[in-house]
Amino acid sequence: MLQSLQSVSRTQVLGVVCAILIASTGMSSQDDAEGVSASHHETQKRIIAAGLEDGFAAEWLETLCDSIGPRLTGSPQMDSAIEFAVKTMRDEGFDKVWTEPVMVPHWVRGNEWAKLTSPVEEKLNISGLGGSVGTPRKGIEAEVLVVSGQEELDSRAAEVKGKIVVFNPEWEGYGPVVKYRGGGASMAARHGAVAALVRSATNVSLNTPHTGVMSYEEGVPKIPTASLTVEDAARMERLTDRGVPVRVRLMMEAENLGARRQFNVIGEIRGRELPDEIIVVGGHLDSWDVGTGAHDDGGGCALTLAAARLLHTLDLHPRRTIRVVLFVAEEQGGFGGRAYLEAHADELDRHVAALESDSGVFAPDGFSVRANEAVVERIATLAAPLKAIGADNVRKGWAGVDIGPIVDQGVPGIGHRCKNDKYFDYHHSPADTFEKVDPADLAGNVSAVAALIWAIAEDGLPRDGAE
Amino acid sequence: MLQSLQSVSRTQVLGVVCAILIASTGMSSQDDAEGVSASHHETQKRIIAAGLEDGFAAEWLETLCDSIGPRLTGSPQMDSAIEFAVKTMRDEGFDKVWTEPVMVPHWVRGNEWAKLTSPVEEKLNISGLGGSVGTPRKGIEAEVLVVSGQEELDSRAAEVKGKIVVFNPEWEGYGPVVKYRGGGASMAARHGAVAALVRSATNVSLNTPHTGVMSYEEGVPKIPTASLTVEDAARMERLTDRGVPVRVRLMMEAENLGARRQFNVIGEIRGRELPDEIIVVGGHLDSWDVGTGAHDDGGGCALTLAAARLLHTLDLHPRRTIRVVLFVAEEQGGFGGRAYLEAHADELDRHVAALESDSGVFAPDGFSVRANEAVVERIATLAAPLKAIGADNVRKGWAGVDIGPIVDQGVPGIGHRCKNDKYFDYHHSPADTFEKVDPADLAGNVSAVAALIWAIAEDGLPRDGAE
Repeated sequence: MLQSLQSVSRTQVLGVVCAILIASTGMSSQDDAEGVSASHHETQKRIIAAGLEDGFAAEWLETLCDSIGPRLTGSPQMDSAIEFAVKTMRDEGFDKVWTEPVMVPHWVRGNEWAKLTSPVEEKLNISGLGGSVGTPRKGIEAEVLVVSGQEELDSRAAEVKGKIVVFNPEWEGYGPVVKYRGGGASMAARHGAVAALVRSATNVSLNTPHTGVMSYEEGVPKIPTASLTVEDAARMERLTDRGVPVRVRLMMEAENLGARRQFNVIGEIRGRELPDEIIVVGGHLDSWDVGTGAHDDGGGCALTLAAARLLHTLDLHPRRTIRVVLFVAEEQGGFGGRAYLEAHADELDRHVAALESDSGVFAPDGFSVRANEAVVERIATLAAPLKAIGADNVRKGWAGVDIGPIVDQGVPGIGHRCKNDKYFDYHHSPADTFEKVDPADLAGNVSAVAALIWAIAEDGLPRDGAE
Repeated sequence: MLQSLQSVSRTQVLGVVCAILIASTGMSSQDDAEGVSASHHETQKRIIAAGLEDGFAAEWLETLCDSIGPRLTGSPQMDSAIEFAVKTMRDEGFDKVWTEPVMVPHWVRGNEWAKLTSPVEEKLNISGLGGSVGTPRKGIEAEVLVVSGQEELDSRAAEVKGKIVVFNPEWEGYGPVVKYRGGGASMAARHGAVAALVRSATNVSLNTPHTGVMSYEEGVPKIPTASLTVEDAARMERLTDRGVPVRVRLMMEAENLGARRQFNVIGEIRGRELPDEIIVVGGHLDSWDVGTGAHDDGGGCALTLAAARLLHTLDLHPRRTIRVVLFVAEEQGGFGGRAYLEAHADELDRHVAALESDSGVFAPDGFSVRANEAVVERIATLAAPLKAIGADNVRKGWAGVDIGPIVDQGVPGIGHRCKNDKYFDYHHSPADTFEKVDPADLAGNVSAVAALIWAIAEDGLPRDGAE
């Protein structure tokens, strides 16, 4: 599977290009009926075809993942990624490129390890959670109490003191599981636990731990917390269910070093007629330190950057300004997005829309729109020509973490969507690597986003777009 | 997927039992035509139905994997596994239980780590190969040369000196790739390499390294060698293809501690009429140290042990002796199998057949037979009633490593086969864990093996069975 990605992509691209050329015949009259000018649709078809042939996003993503590597907020690699993004925007001829400071949390992992010490001594494959405190240098050793979630924890509260609590919830999707990653440490500490270990938030595992952010509740002792693999959590549950005591030693050097200044990276293709009206597009440039963040969210950055660049390359001068924003510190809790709101509060009324890509870069699907019905309908109309690449599925829904603060203030939010059934197989793990991205899918997403934002830049959206 | 295994298994078992009961109607006349008595088929159906309802193999495998854990040859855990197997055979009422000494290699992994040091500093997830020497304490750091295999290595021989060679062959199945795991170190050392890293022998990866045995060629310097994940090997190839120099630091404490005495574990259900005629069944009790060896080969041990036990439990006294042999040190190069040949050379003519299960315990498929056509045909006939559980696919082919030495001497060899498309996803990795085994599949394999060996014990096989 991994081996063949590169070799099939070109064929796939050509196939889709042909499909578009065939589909373009006789589409104009229908388009007119939908209230969008036929000339827009012709341009969108041109954008789509060019996007599918454009290797820029894949090449940029490859360099980001392979040469710069993991981009943990606060790290020197994150500094490198910021420099790389700025340089790219300048080299590619964006009209204006700048950075905006963001105070970000600087958490470092340090060395970490864990092992079973009973019933047998054995190495465990863990991943400390972002924001966790460390352990003493020699680690913490304690018996394990396995619970399926909050309810079982509370019902067994008397057993918790001095133990390492293992949260092993059934997989019922990301949301129900991830609350233990985020809050399990304090839940367990409230009852006297010395550490908390949490089943990785995935349903597919080859003994791969998945990290992610956590936070401590005020007034509750801060205990160290890490993720276990699905396999190790299941084994601990089976053993304790049989009455076999399980002991674990956990060592984490993790440390919160306070705040550091890093930057959102911003580049504009200025509008030809209404340059003060802005369409924001972007993703987050930071990733976790355990992997190279190809789908989360290097791909989102690559495709939004490539989409804006494509309009420029095609010499299409959009009517309104396209502003690419690559946010910092999303993984640590959306710091870049909040800083953007603060810095641009006085020009929010000139933000026509904000589009975020942060759900992977698998085969294109469409967009979910956080705005009123009139906006959703207009976007569906503007996205109709994306049917040729399967990206015309427009629905009301979640838009994104980074654009969340400005969407909360009334800017229509658009979330880029793809067929991401495998997203959580890789998410926040060392398996989120460049080969997991099909360059043909990535190109399709570039086409979809470029064609949509071009149409929005031309036509605008209904006013009072907020939900 | 992992979560639901336990809950569906009972339903699946009942479904298959029903299918067998339905299929049993009107089978006798056809069976007679195939030359096997109808009463045998009735007994085989009884064995199959009982095997499907029997949780012994799953329970035994769970204890072996979860409580005893990894069973590296030479390790104390391997000693525990031997004790556990002996105790099981005694507790389950085998007629005779004993161990036979085997001198085995005692290789230890110790601590090991590797990191990229250029183009960026980053931890790598490696697995030292069994038999490898270690590095100096501070490790070895060198530039990497990535090659697709022997041919490219030889053509670039002048570039090898002082480098770490990375073998990144395309996946074309296990065989073509695994030769670099086994022999890559000496191939590289011959040209002056300081270490060899090898892409894991799998086509599916979530950044999971797969270990395995290696050996050194006489007269060539011994250099350390480890497996890389598919992801890391691909990344190094992409980087070097673009002309980006890649450097790696490798630290391995691995050591060969010489020979140790461990044991093959043997237990017999004595034949009621021809006790001196023997059907050997078994698998290998050792595993790699990085995982708990559920499919490789805890499952093979569990199912062959359970198959013999099932005949005993059902009060079926087979005409010939069923001898369960759980071999030691298969992974290190078939030491247990060779020791068995040495110890039993004088009774080989009384070995009717030898059956090995060492290709996973997925859904049953059938058997591959290493013997002459008359034997293959007889086994196909005896296995015909296994059609109800999909285990009647009998073909000529490979039988197994552990029974290899006695099969080479003329004993008909039978390899247990299952639908093991996912085998190499887990093989020799920390992902080869108990949840990867579906208890319903395991029970089906117990039924298949028990029903077949019972029929062989009753009817024997054509003489001069060797190929």
